[in-house]
Amino acid sequence: MTLLDDLNWRHATKAYDPVKQVSREDLYKILEAARLAPTSSGLQPFRIIVVENQELKSRLVPGALNPDCMRECSYILVFAAWDNYTPERIDAMFDRTTAERNLPYGRFRNYTDALKRIYGASSPEQNFNHAAKQTYIALGLALAQAAELRIDSTPAEGFDNRLIDEVLGLSELGLKSVTLMYIGYSDPERDWLAPMKKVRIPMDEFSTIR
Amino acid sequence: MTLLDDLNWRHATKAYDPVKQVSREDLYKILEAARLAPTSSGLQPFRIIVVENQELKSRLVPGALNPDCMRECSYILVFAAWDNYTPERIDAMFDRTTAERNLPYGRFRNYTDALKRIYGASSPEQNFNHAAKQTYIALGLALAQAAELRIDSTPAEGFDNRLIDEVLGLSELGLKSVTLMYIGYSDPERDWLAPMKKVRIPMDEFSTIR
Repeated sequence: MTLLDDLNWRHATKAYDPVKQVSREDLYKILEAARLAPTSSGLQPFRIIVVENQELKSRLVPGALNPDCMRECSYILVFAAWDNYTPERIDAMFDRTTAERNLPYGRFRNYTDALKRIYGASSPEQNFNHAAKQTYIALGLALAQAAELRIDSTPAEGFDNRLIDEVLGLSELGLKSVTLMYIGYSDPERDWLAPMKKVRIPMDEFSTIR
Repeated sequence: MTLLDDLNWRHATKAYDPVKQVSREDLYKILEAARLAPTSSGLQPFRIIVVENQELKSRLVPGALNPDCMRECSYILVFAAWDNYTPERIDAMFDRTTAERNLPYGRFRNYTDALKRIYGASSPEQNFNHAAKQTYIALGLALAQAAELRIDSTPAEGFDNRLIDEVLGLSELGLKSVTLMYIGYSDPERDWLAPMKKVRIPMDEFSTIR
């Protein structure tokens, strides 16, 4: 199976089997694909909070656009981005990189100084928006990984960010929720999208070569 | 090979072999992965302009953070998002969906009315930002597809958007550049990142299960 097979296989699942549970082993593969995602300057400015506990899920459900999916999926993956780029966060990542590569401490000093200047000149809101974009790279890879494992998933925006952030205590972690991803196994009886044709704009409208 | 193998294999290539050219067949597979990317409400609010022509490339090079990569890669993929969500664009996509699924015309009227209300209440800038985020899902999948084919690639922000938009005439297409992706084959002599360890934050810092 190739990535294109996997992408053609997947769809945004509209209803989950509340009994059939995705294994922890498969969950970790999906998280690993997201962890390996490339990000701007390698800063990985986001985290994933996985919600498995039914009681905790039920407190998030009022904030969902698709409450049944949230309640019945195996896991909710909450992709949450840094609320800001700070000098400390930038240094922490580049200190890790120099250490793991056995490079001299401060090897990237010119580069990190430039990053601190650029992000320091932008508002926290602008910086959060930039970090939020990076999370979508990881979202794409997590969706692809779920599909490779033939696990169903649903990417979801349009939820009540404030409620999710509050219930999960994200602001104390310096994070803000960006996007959700439900994973589980489709309930074929109720998943109305499953039998429908995948629709995409044709390649000649999507892309041109010059 | 699995997706995780492919993601572990790839890195952000820092120098390309100017002679070794990626085939059109492989290019189309990479574009196809991006075309299959899921997007918010299925609107696919972005396009990819591929630049192959050396003369055109040379006009873009002054706007690049990494001019050698831009000049020497096989193709520059310019991911460009809609400058706004408009009723016409929303209708065009949902008309296509109803037609391809043999559903009655207007089947999604309530949904598209809601989308038009939501996007109509936001500024073009806010809407562009939302569309831009969707492009990163496709960027992630395109990077994964290149890796599956063992084609080298570089995702690139930090370029001169105004120059790229102007040279490619994007505003006449209702588009604004978001991110670039170079594809080609690494020049091992000059690609300093190739031999270095991939660094990511550890899983227990990246993600928690609750």
